Amino acid sequence: MLGEFDLIARYFKPLAARMAGAVGLEDDTCTWRPGAGEELVLTADALVAGIHFLPDDPADLIARKMLRVNLSDLAAKGAKPVGYLMTTAFSPDIDEAWVAQFCQGLAADQDEFGIGLMGGDTVATPGPLSLSLTAIGTVPVGRAPRRNGAKPGDIVLVSGSIGDGALGLKVLRHDFLGLEESHRRFLSNRYHLPQPRVDLGRALMESGKVHAMMDVSDGLVADLTHITDASKVAATLRASAVPVSEAAAAILADDMGWLPLILTGGDDYELLLTASAADVPDLLGIAAELDMPLTAIGEIAAGKGVTVVDRDGAALELAQKGFRHF
Amino acid sequence: MLGEFDLIARYFKPLAARMAGAVGLEDDTCTWRPGAGEELVLTADALVAGIHFLPDDPADLIARKMLRVNLSDLAAKGAKPVGYLMTTAFSPDIDEAWVAQFCQGLAADQDEFGIGLMGGDTVATPGPLSLSLTAIGTVPVGRAPRRNGAKPGDIVLVSGSIGDGALGLKVLRHDFLGLEESHRRFLSNRYHLPQPRVDLGRALMESGKVHAMMDVSDGLVADLTHITDASKVAATLRASAVPVSEAAAAILADDMGWLPLILTGGDDYELLLTASAADVPDLLGIAAELDMPLTAIGEIAAGKGVTVVDRDGAALELAQKGFRHF
Repeated sequence: MLGEFDLIARYFKPLAARMAGAVGLEDDTCTWRPGAGEELVLTADALVAGIHFLPDDPADLIARKMLRVNLSDLAAKGAKPVGYLMTTAFSPDIDEAWVAQFCQGLAADQDEFGIGLMGGDTVATPGPLSLSLTAIGTVPVGRAPRRNGAKPGDIVLVSGSIGDGALGLKVLRHDFLGLEESHRRFLSNRYHLPQPRVDLGRALMESGKVHAMMDVSDGLVADLTHITDASKVAATLRASAVPVSEAAAAILADDMGWLPLILTGGDDYELLLTASAADVPDLLGIAAELDMPLTAIGEIAAGKGVTVVDRDGAALELAQKGFRHF
Repeated sequence: MLGEFDLIARYFKPLAARMAGAVGLEDDTCTWRPGAGEELVLTADALVAGIHFLPDDPADLIARKMLRVNLSDLAAKGAKPVGYLMTTAFSPDIDEAWVAQFCQGLAADQDEFGIGLMGGDTVATPGPLSLSLTAIGTVPVGRAPRRNGAKPGDIVLVSGSIGDGALGLKVLRHDFLGLEESHRRFLSNRYHLPQPRVDLGRALMESGKVHAMMDVSDGLVADLTHITDASKVAATLRASAVPVSEAAAAILADDMGWLPLILTGGDDYELLLTASAADVPDLLGIAAELDMPLTAIGEIAAGKGVTVVDRDGAALELAQKGFRHF
């Protein structure tokens, strides 16, 4: 393994080229300011090998997922991504080839999302590989949708398809062996490489018609509960309306018992939002222009908590609402 | 141990009260913007138990040192601290009492430095307790001193006293048992609770007379080398001029063999800067007004690298220049 400073110079410095204020990571700090009328949106996440990703996941995919999970948080506020600070605690098994591949993944997504490395720190740990990332975006001042704006009468909408990430993890753990190979690849790819809905989030924010928005990471039911708790309202979630991919539909066709995992598994990184019923057609139109599915899956009412109902309106009981770290 | 969300609500949410844009940590993101004419200064650090702090260090001191190490980076850019995002990976031995004490430490330093928690993430790890922090400050646009501005003829200055942190760690590891108790306490306190030179850094930046500035964390010689490398100049460091505390002087009086540790041990969190010889009196005056020692310890010249000289001008050879993580 190269020394700390050589490693930074060879692999991390090129990632900071886009950020003039990072001065080639030579300064311990980065300077930067948002444009006129813009404010920052800041978010941070920690990832630990064996908990948030599989220790033998490809290094470039670990890097890209780490970035995308945070870009998804920014997307839910309608923010334009700018850059990130990253700290890495490398376990003894990490070698230079791993770091090189990790940084290739970062570089690929920096290009895809137009962001740059602003700073960070590289240390060693005797424990599992641990990563921490602070992502920074910008949004017009005061325009970021919060979780606490849902109102009785609102429609609940979600982008893309739900459940693929949790099912993809099971595929990678050698479950669903009878599933068609193309479906298996689709699901594992959705687990490894989520698609932060940056453009959709921005367009929805710009519409000014979103009352509450967040991304689905802990699980659809848990995250909708975050919205109802913060907004002091209740929600009904129609399980049969929740959009699923062809691959997830094939699994459900074989065994509806996988529905709770789809509704609560998390790792979706889709946008979950509420808006007035009258504004839903406009929002569907905005999504359609971006070729992004956006689906009405429930309603907000006065009260507390989330009720999941099946096709007949009967309440479904879920053993667990979503992922908790402990 | 409380669940993730209860832990956040009980212990971390109160720390975010100062930051309106953090919305009680209910939103995964924080919004915030610098004032007119200001830009951000961003820095990030990772800390791992057993490497950056002793596993049985008091939790409140771990918290405060983590904050202060980053505030020291901001101080070296003349930045006013604003807030921080923090990720914590808790090892299995961490209980609620530990978290409570950790957050008491954060609260104490939030009050002392006028900063607030802007966001973060709390996860579990089977490895050692790992912490990562991104600190944010503001500075008038374009005014942050960099490392790369040192010029031939400049004087090298350093604040406070050097070597206490490294000697303090040895005290905590039961070295220097013959040393006076008050000296032992002073040194271990300097290790546990460094003093980021926020006011001095800001006053020096405002003078407009600082050519290069950084904080001493890796070790005086290593950090001066960072300045000479970035500025493409050479430096002479006069070992006998380096300011030491009474406690360090007592150790040196007994055995000059500790000098290399003082010059290279790091964990000092003092400001290291260069300025024109003509401006040194003004800078010393600024420091004196703040009751902060500021001492000339060397000179910048054309060339490359740092030469440490003793009282007679003979070069001292040091086996190691500073701390490296690997």
